[in-house]
Formats: sequence, structure tokens, C-alpha cells
Amino acid sequence: MKAAIIGGGVIGGGWAARFLLNGWDVALFDPDPQSERKIGEVLANARRSLPALYDRPLPAEGRLCSCGTLEEAVDGADWVQESVPERLDLKRRVLGAIRAATPDHAVIGSSTSGFKPSELNAEGGRAIVAHPFNPVYLLPLVELVGPGAEAAAPILRGIGMFPLVLRKEIDAHIADRLLEAVWRESLWLVTDGVATTEEIDEAIRMGFGLRWAQMGLFETYRVAGGEAGMKHFMAQFGPALSWPWTRLMDVPDFTDDLVDLIADQSDAQSGHIGIRDLERLRDDNLVGILRALRHSGSGAGGVILSHEAALPHPEGQAPTVTVIRQVPQSWTDYNGHMNEARYLEAASQATDRFMEMIGAGADYVASGRSYFSVESHIRHLEEVRAGDRIRITTRVLSGTGKKLHVFNSLYRDDGTLAATVETLMLHMDLEARRACPPEPEVAARLARFAEAHATLPRPEGAGRFVGERPD
Amino acid sequence: MKAAIIGGGVIGGGWAARFLLNGWDVALFDPDPQSERKIGEVLANARRSLPALYDRPLPAEGRLCSCGTLEEAVDGADWVQESVPERLDLKRRVLGAIRAATPDHAVIGSSTSGFKPSELNAEGGRAIVAHPFNPVYLLPLVELVGPGAEAAAPILRGIGMFPLVLRKEIDAHIADRLLEAVWRESLWLVTDGVATTEEIDEAIRMGFGLRWAQMGLFETYRVAGGEAGMKHFMAQFGPALSWPWTRLMDVPDFTDDLVDLIADQSDAQSGHIGIRDLERLRDDNLVGILRALRHSGSGAGGVILSHEAALPHPEGQAPTVTVIRQVPQSWTDYNGHMNEARYLEAASQATDRFMEMIGAGADYVASGRSYFSVESHIRHLEEVRAGDRIRITTRVLSGTGKKLHVFNSLYRDDGTLAATVETLMLHMDLEARRACPPEPEVAARLARFAEAHATLPRPEGAGRFVGERPD
Repeated sequence: MKAAIIGGGVIGGGWAARFLLNGWDVALFDPDPQSERKIGEVLANARRSLPALYDRPLPAEGRLCSCGTLEEAVDGADWVQESVPERLDLKRRVLGAIRAATPDHAVIGSSTSGFKPSELNAEGGRAIVAHPFNPVYLLPLVELVGPGAEAAAPILRGIGMFPLVLRKEIDAHIADRLLEAVWRESLWLVTDGVATTEEIDEAIRMGFGLRWAQMGLFETYRVAGGEAGMKHFMAQFGPALSWPWTRLMDVPDFTDDLVDLIADQSDAQSGHIGIRDLERLRDDNLVGILRALRHSGSGAGGVILSHEAALPHPEGQAPTVTVIRQVPQSWTDYNGHMNEARYLEAASQATDRFMEMIGAGADYVASGRSYFSVESHIRHLEEVRAGDRIRITTRVLSGTGKKLHVFNSLYRDDGTLAATVETLMLHMDLEARRACPPEPEVAARLARFAEAHATLPRPEGAGRFVGERPD
Repeated sequence: MKAAIIGGGVIGGGWAARFLLNGWDVALFDPDPQSERKIGEVLANARRSLPALYDRPLPAEGRLCSCGTLEEAVDGADWVQESVPERLDLKRRVLGAIRAATPDHAVIGSSTSGFKPSELNAEGGRAIVAHPFNPVYLLPLVELVGPGAEAAAPILRGIGMFPLVLRKEIDAHIADRLLEAVWRESLWLVTDGVATTEEIDEAIRMGFGLRWAQMGLFETYRVAGGEAGMKHFMAQFGPALSWPWTRLMDVPDFTDDLVDLIADQSDAQSGHIGIRDLERLRDDNLVGILRALRHSGSGAGGVILSHEAALPHPEGQAPTVTVIRQVPQSWTDYNGHMNEARYLEAASQATDRFMEMIGAGADYVASGRSYFSVESHIRHLEEVRAGDRIRITTRVLSGTGKKLHVFNSLYRDDGTLAATVETLMLHMDLEARRACPPEPEVAARLARFAEAHATLPRPEGAGRFVGERPD
């Protein structure tokens, strides 16, 4: 399959990447001499992120070529996507040239944020609006409206997108109308000196932005309405429609008909899931999203990291307690228990904590030294479930020279030993990527733990191998 | 520390949970006979989710008591939070009663969505607005405005929240003004028959909702503006302010002063990070959020799962190729390479794929049978980095009766063997949670693989143990 991309800015480049990484050949036409460089940058971003969404390989990447003329680009194309600047006269002219040279079977899509198909096709033509969202290679949404929109949808599903076919054409489609409303209200807030751009961003990403990533507006409010449901929510907040809660004041009449319309649609959308189940789904998704954000420290992820830094570490004697934590729902799998990999993740946190205790924490890593795990043995003895609180003790079996041999024991809250994780680590020079002895201060602290732990009996299961002894 | 919660609905209950799980004692007053049950349900949700955000234990939970009078609840409190229904007369009356009985040092906060402190305190008083977002136990945002708001902020940071202190009081504060604008525009879209509630939710959660969870409005647009920056973005979309992109039409004048104000604030907010770095941060966060959503299949996570289901599995001869995939940035750690636990996660995916191949996939699990890992040995031989493509082959070492012994080899794209993961599994009756033999069809398919793999030389490293041989 071949896609022709007419206009290679951020949006055109995103389309090109989305098609290419899903195995389509892509022909690009953009008279801008910078366009190849720009597309290259978008593609580099897409290659490092889009395939990472999937646990299977995407198809082999298609062929990208930059064409000297629009006609050459659209020749033999199955999908032609116009992404030129948002000026109606320009879009009409380019779409006219596309129509003249494009095969009859091909879909002609326009990335327009605001124009209606009837406007684009006023001088003839069969272009549909196929309005994507930046970054096009990652966000699934594409709004489709116009002649043949329904038939074009499966093609976009085939490249991993979510085509939303609109019931009728309207300026700015759906999502940009919502965005425009927020944009206008935000400009008022800044103009009136109520809030800065940063404060407005915080008000979004620390709160409702986290809800909207998973449920959108109405389902979120349905959950907020609780057992009493959507009508209750409407009754509670409907009156605010007549209050000055926004500078944007043209509002629909708050009639019983409107309440029924919304409540009925909400029932059709989510009525098959109970409120308690919706709440748990919302919370599990929030925890997953928040844990994803703590990896980068962005937004709410940063708040979690700061709060955590202020929490005391677990304390303990030999063997040393290194982890006490709850098992997130996102750590469980289809067997209904903690996935096997998360045992190693928890043990890895235990080892990280032990590293801090011997002075080989973040500062030490920043100075160019670190311990790397070279070998681990895990015994899964008992199941652990979401919400369980687990405790890990860490024992040094030996720790001299470049080698460090530790034994982590993972206990459930009821005291049951659920797993052991035995690990051999090597001390590394991060610059040379080679093993080397630890700094004397680290070696000395480690020796003190090793000495204390040497008085304990050897833990059961240490030195285990999997299955039969090799010949 | 003691918090008094006056009004125990969804919001009051959320406050109670947030304080309790951070070690505060909580006294609740709500005349509703259902309030204890309702709070119990909110608390159950909070206990399964809030501690899962952190890799350290939260403080020991405080004591919760339900009080017969408001005066008893606020006695000795350090923070009193009013969360009664959104009626000004009611809030004034309750805040008056609180003021009369509350210690002088205590903060008095109101959860009001819309009223200003000057309205709440019109008849005297020192209440501040402390407006949280549902679910209060998970979302960090709390808008603070009123006398002493600045001084109250550290207390909320201490329970893991993000207090946003407002520059001036305004109806509905900041976030609810933005929400109200979207709500009003959405009601128009539904009223006019342009979209249903479900379509509007999809337009949000499949697109900009995913951006807003991490960056908010302005920083997202800054990235969209690309190298040309915020002024370029404003110039491109500013004219839309005079177009009918919303039914809400009262808009600020689009002057040079407004453009400068926004661009300057955006520079102050994000100017220290280059656009390319912001793009990569955005993409890494999007991948993290999307991978979190694929765990539940909600929204965009469902789109990824459907797309993936349509992708072909890797093919291969003995030993069987079970995984080909890219390493997400979220799989790496502070050492700059794939975290040790992700090797086991990838091997676990390989084993899952092998399960499908022998007829022991999702349907088999649903029928009450599954293989559980009981023991694994991992050898980390070479580093793997974000963006690397990895390939895993799976070999059966033995597979008779209840036991299945497999050996996974993980290769980098350049052919280097980066790790081996040897695993012993037991076939389980999921009902009885006891080992049992597999169904004959599964046993037969497994035997065919075992036979084919038996002709291969024994893999190097099979049967390894960690460190020295035990006595």
C-alpha cells in the first residue's frame, strides 16, 4: 500500500511516520527545502516510541521517497493526505491538483483543523476531513467526516488509529471545539491576571487531565454522580450553567429534555458497567498512569516522587529490611496474581535500597560507578495478589572485590515466604563499561553488612538451579 | 495530627481517606445515616490504590471515628474540611458552626467548587477554599485561595497533594472554569445532535486527554509550535478566535500584547527545555500512559490491543521464535539500560506466546487451567537499551507430566546473546490452586515441540546456579 503525504510539517510528518511504521510506502511532496530534515526528525521520534507501544513487532517499515512534484507523489497512491497550512484558498487549490492526478480508488483526506468538507469541496471534489492529533504517530484519534468517511475508517484502523466518524459536518469538528473553548477561557484567565500559563497547565495535569486520558468528560461525571447516576450529577451542577463560571456565556437551556438526552446517552455508553466497577477501573487506570508519570517525574509523577522522598525507609536488623510496599493492580496478570517479572522488580528495588545503604546510591551512579546484576535465581513459592503488602529482607552472602552476592526474601503481610531472589552483581566502571573494585568507603560499608549477615544460617534455597543437573 | 471532615459524601470521604492513609487521625461528622457505609466504600477504594503509587510504605493508618456532633469532630483538630452540598446559605451556616468550635491554630478549608472565600466569609470567618478533585485520594490537585492559603499549602504537600495557590479569588477558581467551558460546549454538541456523550468522550480520551495528563494546554501547544515557538503557534491559531469554532463566543481581543504575555509566560514555564527534549519527554510519557492503559484495555489502550491482535506473530523453526519487540524507554533504569526485571518480563511474554502455541493460551486459562512459573534463572550477559529491538527463542528442555522446563534466549538485533532465562513451570488447576497434569491436547502439542527441540545441543548456561555451590 502507498500513501502520498502532501505537506510535510509536524502533522504531515506524523502521518508519514504512522503509515511508514505500519508497513506502507510513503511518497512525500513538500516544496519547502527543509522538509526532508523536518520529516527525518519526526520519524526519529516515531521510531523510538510507536513500536514501543506493542509487544509484537510492527510490519517491516515501508519505503519513504521525497518527490519533486505533487503528481509524482500521488501516482498509484491508495491514500492521499493533505496537510498544508490552514487557509481555505490554499487547501482548495492543493486538493484540486490532488484530485486531478489521484487514482479513483484512493481516499483523499485533509488534515484541516477547522474547515468542513462542503467548504473544501465547494468547487467540486471528494476530499474527506481526516483530522489527526499531534503527535500523529502516537495519538489514535482521527476525526472523519465527508463523502465516504465510513468506508475509509477501516484503513485507518489498520494503521492503529481510532477513526471517529462524525454524524454531521461542523466547523472545527468535535475535539477542536472543546479545545477552543478551553483555549478561550484560558486566554481570559491570563488576560485578567487570574493565572499564568504554568498555573493553568498545573490545574489541568494535576487534576482532570489525569481523568480525561482514560474516560473523557461524561463517563468521569457519571462516576462522580455515584450511585445516584447521571441525572443526579446533572441536577447538582446544572444550575451552574446560569452562573458566571466562565466568561463564555452562550449556554443551552437546561431543560428536562436536555437532562434526559444526556442521561440516556450516558446509560447507553456505560450503563452496562456498575458504578463500583467503573470506580475501580478509573482508580486502576489512574494508578497506572501516575506510575508511568513517576518514571519521568513529569507533572503528578513529580509530586509522587517528592512525597515518597519524604517517607521514611523501612528499618530492620540483620537480615536487613529493604522494602515494604503494596502490590499495584498493574503488577498482576491474567492468572490473577502478581506477574513473575514483578518479583524481580520488587527484589531489584530491594537491591537498590541496599545500594543506598552502602553508599552506592544515585550520587555514586552519577560519579560513574554502579553495581550491575549479572545473574539471578528466583523461586516462586506462594502467590501474591493486588493490594497485598509485601516485605523484603536482603542478605549479603558474600561481598568482596568486584563481586556482590545477595539473597532477597520476599514475604507476604501474613509472614509467609512468597519468593526468594538470589543475585550476583558486579561492580562497574560506567565510563569503560567494565568491572572494577568499588570505592573504599563503599567496600567498607558492605563489609560491615557482610560480617553481620555471616552469623546467620545459610538461607534455604541459596545456590539452587532450575531442573536437573547438567551432565 | 487530626483532621475533621464535615460532610461525608464522595468528596468528604476522599479527604478522609487521603488524611487517614497518610497517618492522620480523622473525625467525621455527617448526619446522613448512610455516611459510615459511604465512607467505608471510598476508603476501600483508596486502600487498594493510593499506597500502590509509592515504592515505600505510607505511614501507619490513622484512627477514624464517626462523631455525633460537629463540635466533637472539630475538637482538637489541626485541619477542618467542609464538604457539604454546594449551597451558599448551607455552607455559611456550617462554616459558622465550625468557626465557633475549632481551635485557633487549625486551618478551616471548604471544598466548594464555585464560591469565593469572600462569599463564604461574608458574615465573618477565616475559611479558605481548598478545592480538591475526585478521587481526592488519588488526584494531587487542590486549589487554595483565601486568607492564609499560602501557609496551609505545606500541610497538603505533606499528604501528597499539589496545592495550587491562586493569585486572586474568582468564581469556580481555575480548573472548574475550564471544565465548565468544555461542559457547556459539549452540551451544545449533544443538544444540536452533532455528537453523543460517548463520541465526545472518545474525542477526548483518544486524543488531547492523553496529552493533558502530562503537560496541560500551553506546554502542549508550545511543543506543537515546534522550533518556531509559542508566538508561531499563536499566530497560526489566533485568528480562529474570531471564527465560530465554539458556540461560546465572548473572546478576548487578540492583540500583540496578549501574544507577548502568553509567549513570555510560556518561556518562563518551559523555556529552559529545548523543543526536541520536550518532544521526547512528551512521547516517553505518552508511551508510558498508553502502556498503562493497555493493561486495562481502556480507551486508547483498547485500540493498541486490537491493533496488536491483528499483527502477525514472529515465525521460526526450532528453537522457536516467540518474541520480537522494541524496548520502551519506560523499561530502562538509572543505569541507562533495560532494567533487570524487564528481562524476565520479556521472557514471560515469550513463555506466554509459547503457551498459545501449545493451546494453553487465554481460552485455556479461562477454562480453569494454566502453567505457573515456580523457578527461574536469569543470566544478564549484555546490556540492552531503549529503542533496541530484541528477539527471544524458546526451547523446551523437558515437558512431561505436570512439569515444563523451558530455556529462553534473548538476542539483540545485532545477533548478540544478551540474556538467558531458564524457567520451570507447573501445570495448575486454577480452581483448586493445585498442580495437575495438562489436558491431553496440550500435552500432545507440547510433546511435539519437546521432541523437535531434543535434537538440539543443550544450551550453554542451562542448569546454572548463582555463586558458589552450597555445602
